[in-house]
Order: sequence, then C-alpha cells, then structure tokens
Amino acid sequence: MTTLDIRNARALDGTPVDVRVAQGRIVALGASLPATKDAAARRIDARGALLLPGLVESHTHLDKTVWGMPWYVNACGTRLVDRIDNERQWRAQSGHDAGAASLALARAFLAAGTTRLRTHVDIDTDAGLRHLDGVLATRDTLADTLDMQIVAFPQSGVLDRAGTLELLDAALSRGADVLGWLDPCAIDRDPKASLDAMFALADKHGCPVDIHLHEPGEMGVFTFELMLERIAALGMQGKVVVSHAFCLGELDAARAQALLARLAQAGVALVTTAPPSRTVPPLLACRRAGVALAGGNDGIRDTWTPYGSPDMLERAMMIGLRYNLRRDDELEQIALDCVTHQGAAVCGFEHYGLQVGARADLVLVDAVNAAQAVVTRAPRRWVVANGRVVVSDGVPA
Amino acid sequence: MTTLDIRNARALDGTPVDVRVAQGRIVALGASLPATKDAAARRIDARGALLLPGLVESHTHLDKTVWGMPWYVNACGTRLVDRIDNERQWRAQSGHDAGAASLALARAFLAAGTTRLRTHVDIDTDAGLRHLDGVLATRDTLADTLDMQIVAFPQSGVLDRAGTLELLDAALSRGADVLGWLDPCAIDRDPKASLDAMFALADKHGCPVDIHLHEPGEMGVFTFELMLERIAALGMQGKVVVSHAFCLGELDAARAQALLARLAQAGVALVTTAPPSRTVPPLLACRRAGVALAGGNDGIRDTWTPYGSPDMLERAMMIGLRYNLRRDDELEQIALDCVTHQGAAVCGFEHYGLQVGARADLVLVDAVNAAQAVVTRAPRRWVVANGRVVVSDGVPA
Repeated sequence: MTTLDIRNARALDGTPVDVRVAQGRIVALGASLPATKDAAARRIDARGALLLPGLVESHTHLDKTVWGMPWYVNACGTRLVDRIDNERQWRAQSGHDAGAASLALARAFLAAGTTRLRTHVDIDTDAGLRHLDGVLATRDTLADTLDMQIVAFPQSGVLDRAGTLELLDAALSRGADVLGWLDPCAIDRDPKASLDAMFALADKHGCPVDIHLHEPGEMGVFTFELMLERIAALGMQGKVVVSHAFCLGELDAARAQALLARLAQAGVALVTTAPPSRTVPPLLACRRAGVALAGGNDGIRDTWTPYGSPDMLERAMMIGLRYNLRRDDELEQIALDCVTHQGAAVCGFEHYGLQVGARADLVLVDAVNAAQAVVTRAPRRWVVANGRVVVSDGVPA
Repeated sequence: MTTLDIRNARALDGTPVDVRVAQGRIVALGASLPATKDAAARRIDARGALLLPGLVESHTHLDKTVWGMPWYVNACGTRLVDRIDNERQWRAQSGHDAGAASLALARAFLAAGTTRLRTHVDIDTDAGLRHLDGVLATRDTLADTLDMQIVAFPQSGVLDRAGTLELLDAALSRGADVLGWLDPCAIDRDPKASLDAMFALADKHGCPVDIHLHEPGEMGVFTFELMLERIAALGMQGKVVVSHAFCLGELDAARAQALLARLAQAGVALVTTAPPSRTVPPLLACRRAGVALAGGNDGIRDTWTPYGSPDMLERAMMIGLRYNLRRDDELEQIALDCVTHQGAAVCGFEHYGLQVGARADLVLVDAVNAAQAVVTRAPRRWVVANGRVVVSDGVPA
C-alpha cells in the first residue's frame, strides 16, 4: 500500500522523476509513474524541486552542543588539551544536559535533510555514561525518522584515566554501536598499549572503530602503520574509520599514494571536516586509491568551536571550498557525494540511496542542479525520513 | 536637525547605546540620549539589537556576477588562463550586461549591511569600457547610500594585448578611482616593463594601485621586491594595495617578518579572501608588523567561481575559519575587524566608524556579541547607509 506519492520532482540529471513510498521504503521511482490508487496515500506535488538522497552526517558530537541555547562565550586556550580540559570543567559547572542538547541539534539536522547521522558521545570518568544515556534517549525519541549511530568516545583519553576502558566497555553493552578512540601517541602517550586496548575492546564487542587522529606529520603516519599491523593481525578489515587524518595531507604524492593503497587494502575509510586551517587528506588521491572519504562537521557550536551547522549542504560547500571544486560536475560527484553516498559507505548505513528497496530518505530542494544546491545551500522544500514527511513545503513538521 | 533617532541598541561591549543621525552623519552616540525634539525625525526602537559599523567589502567584481540570474553551469578548466579565456568568451556570447548585474549584486550587498565597497571592473580590448560604464551607472543609482570605489582592472593582462594601457588610462579619466593590475610575471611575462607601466599610469593620474598578485612562492616575493623598489623611487608610499598575496603564506616566519616590515614601511596594504584551498598572508604577523589586512570576496557567483556571498559577515566567518579564530575576542577584534575598520583603512574610505562626525553607516543585528554575529551571520534587523534606512525591521526598503 503506497503511503506517499511524490510527483513532478527532478533527478540530478535534470529529468522528471516521481517517487512512491510504502512502509518506509522506496517502492517505485521513475518518470511519469501512474497515479496511485491508494486513497490514503499522501500526495506531494514537488513542482520541479530537485531530488537528493537523504543527507549523511558522518562525524558530529550531538552531546556537546549548545545549539539553541544562550551563546557560549569562548575564551579557551588553543591547544588540544586546553580544549579538552576546558570542556570537562564547563560541563561540571554548567549542568549541561546532553539529552536536551542532542535532541535540539538532531531535530535541526532532520529539518535540514539529514536522515543518517553518526555521533560521537563523550565517555569519561567525570561524566560516566550520562552523555550516552542522553543521546540514547534522543535516538529513541527520533527512532521513526533519524537513523543514528552512536560512537562511545573517550574524549579525555584512555590510558591516563583509570576506569575509562571499563566505561567504554559498558557503553558498548548499553547501546553504543561503534568504539571511538583518540590520538594514541599525542594523548595516550603509549601508542602500543593504547591501540592494543582499542582493538581488544572492539574485538570483544565485534564492533567497528572510529578513531580521531589529530596527530600531525610522521607521528600520525606512525599511528596509521601501527593500526594497519593490527587490522591485518585481527582481521579487522573494513571495520576501521579514521577521522581527521590531517597527517595524510602533509605527505608528498608518492608517499601518500603508497599509504593510501595500504589503507584501501585494509578497508580503512576516512572522514574529514575539510578544515580551512589544517592539512586534509588528498581527496582525489583517496578516490583513485579506492579509499572512501566522507564529510562531517565535528562539533557544532560547543565549547570547542563556535562554527558548524546542521546543514550538510553547507558542509558540502566547505568541502568544495577546501578542495577548490568549482565545476558543476565536481560539486555533484565529489562535494555532494561526501555528504551522501560516501557517508553511507564510510559509516555503513544500509539500504541507502535513490533506488527501489532503499529506505525512503528524500530531500527536495529549490535548485536546478546539485552544484546550485550545494553552493546556495538550497532551501529544503520537503524532507522525507524513513518514509515520514518531516519538512512539508518548507515548514518542519 | 535630527533625521534619525535610534534607541535601545547595544554596543559591542554589551552596554546600551542610542544613535542620532543628521545630514547623513552621526551627530550623537551614547547611553540614554535625551529624546530628540525634531518631530520629523524617524524613530527606531532597536529592541536590544547589536550595533555594528557599516560592513566593508574590499575586493569584489560586481561586473562579472550572475547573481540573481539563471544558474551558470561551470565546466571550465582549472588554470588561471583557462578561467580568463573562458570568461572573455562567455561574455562575448552571452551578452552579459555589467550594469544590470552589478546593480543586482550591489543591492544585495546593501541589504546585508555593506555600505562601502571596492569593486574591480574588467577593462580589456574586447569589452573596452562597457563594464566600466555599467558599474558607473550602478554607482550613480546608489550614490545616496553605497560608497563605491571602482578599480580599472585589466583582467586579461596588459602587455600582451595592445590597446589595454590606453583603455585603462581612459577608464581612470572617466571615473575609475584606482588602477588595478595583474601578475606582472605570470601573466604579463615581463615584470619590469609591466610594473613600470603600472606605476607610470598611476603616477600620471595620481591614483592608488590595487594589484592582484596570485604568483606563488619566490615569483611572488620577487614581484613584491620590484614593487617596493618603485614605491620608494616614486614616493608611492601608502598608495599600493596587494590583493591575494598567496606567496606571503609560503615564507618561514623570519622571512615573512622581514618582508612585512618592508611592506609596513612602504604603507603597502593587503586584501585576502581567506581561501581555504590556498596559502594566505600570515594575519597575526601582519598585525604585529603594522601591515593592514582586509577581507573581500573576490568574484561572487560568476564564471570563475560558484562561491561567494554579498554577506560580509559570512566573509568574516570564512576568515575566522581560515585563520582558526575560535575565541570570541578573536572573532571581534580580528575577523569582524577585517570586514569593517581594516577594510576602511586599506581602501581609504573616509569618515568611517561608530563615532560622532562619521558617515552614518550602521548595521543592527540579532546577536549578543560580535562573535555570534559573525558565526551565525546574524539577521540584519536595520541597515542605515549614509543616514538612510535601507533595511527596516528585517525588510529591505
């Protein structure tokens, strides 16, 4: 039984397209579909709006945000440890509620067309599993629409803070999907012990890993090598994501190519925020090597950074700017791809895309093509998440 | 006689402030001013909106834009010469109207709070002075509100295209304020002859120079040295702006410091778009050396680039992202400064700022402080340009 009948949309190639949805899935997709006979079906005339697949956020921190709350005045130092310490202190003082914060931001993501999202949730010996519980509640609240993966993330490091490993273990038992980790050299100061602990815990839970690797230059490359050794030894191919990976942007082309070939073989995927002020993984070389690379915000308006937006088309624009993508074909096939298909591939979101049988995650925007959608961060006219209309004619439901 | 009486605004330091305007100037500014007795005065209750000075665009190309027109599909090559040739061909085919284009974009700038603007106008042997005439018409149309400087800019180079120098000469006689120029090595292929011609023409008209210097590394540094020699010889101190200056971001700290000291002595100022994909002048070192550095868009949605926005708060955000400015004080004193006071200083816009006697260029935004205004690109609640209200309670006049 058709529940949703969308007519007069336009596909990325400019041709007319209609979409039929039933039980949260796309059941028909094509030009000039015959009208549904289901009287109960909701009908949408897209009036020529451009059809995109649901947007994918591959790396954010819903639990940290002050989105929708009073402006946070940032007067923090500039080192990574300054920001980690500042946040832990602020949380203790402010009574920050990770449940309410994550729900407000997740709803903003949905309204902007993000239907799949991977969020890293702070697990540490001060907060315990409080942030996880808040974000689990948000996932429950939005379970009908937003497909959310939760990463148990030890923001303050593991080895130096006794009890953290046990908390991560508990978090993975309580509903986190992925084990997060942080700079084994620069933060944990003992890369062998750190990575051994990480892979042992992932192995125990049979879960994927997503490691935040800020380590620059040779230090970062060393960490990549240590990870590759362990992936091979443990058969963890295809289960490791490396976020940030600034060091890959510092290598000459030949060395980058050699390392990327090893990453492709190990099925290691990457996520970048495309930061304007840092080196970034070489996007085109990653594509040539077969290394998946997706885009994410990292934190959005939190004690770390005032920047970021739940609009993944804006993140695609930042990717376009960072990698100097100016042609329409580049904006569609690379920038937009990083926040759609690449995101789904990197995070492992299933039943993704614009084809029959996929989850009905649809975004209809006011743009003539993908390039315009990205650059203008085109207005979301309709958003359908898991078959449910969450934005209707520009108005969030 | 007071013409405009703004009450209940907030200054950047958070204190209440009222503003009185007469004959296009600020005549009083302070907390709790007594109510004006002029019955004809327009009264605005700012309801706590944050008061910023008029925003300044230090480098754009109004004449090139397709803003407000059908989407331009970019399928151009990636070299500088590809983009120059592509644009010239497109202009010849499309019948692009630089007058209509520049007016649409200039109005969008005004509506977003930009009250001072320097635009580079293409002068070449194909288009002649047609673009100049279009932009001069736009300047006339908006003369009551927008303070516009016009740069006669030889986008296709000078030495290789006979007749260009004479057209630049004619443009400066016809109303252009500033002589523009382009890569003396990389484009003109004869830096001595190119720079000699540039300085001779500027000297003849007694006008400032604004040179687009894309040349990387040692080539760019060489051009800087040649310019410094000529500035000293001709007494052109304080009359040269260098836009882009990517090469300054490639030098080690000691060499950058030495060159910046020479630029400061010669009164050379810089403009950056803060491009995420290129090296940029070291902003903090420029400040320490006393070299003014302002922000600009460069082209906005034209055949060169799909990016850019007439919103100078968005440009300030891009500056903040490129230079990794995260603290509220940095966003106010550096990022916002680049699109306000630094812009006025670099371009030489007079009577600028929030003080009695200055031109009444005022922007009232929905933000608690400058950092929030930049990061959220806060809604413009009221915009006053030269004493005239061009946005009223969020609605362009």
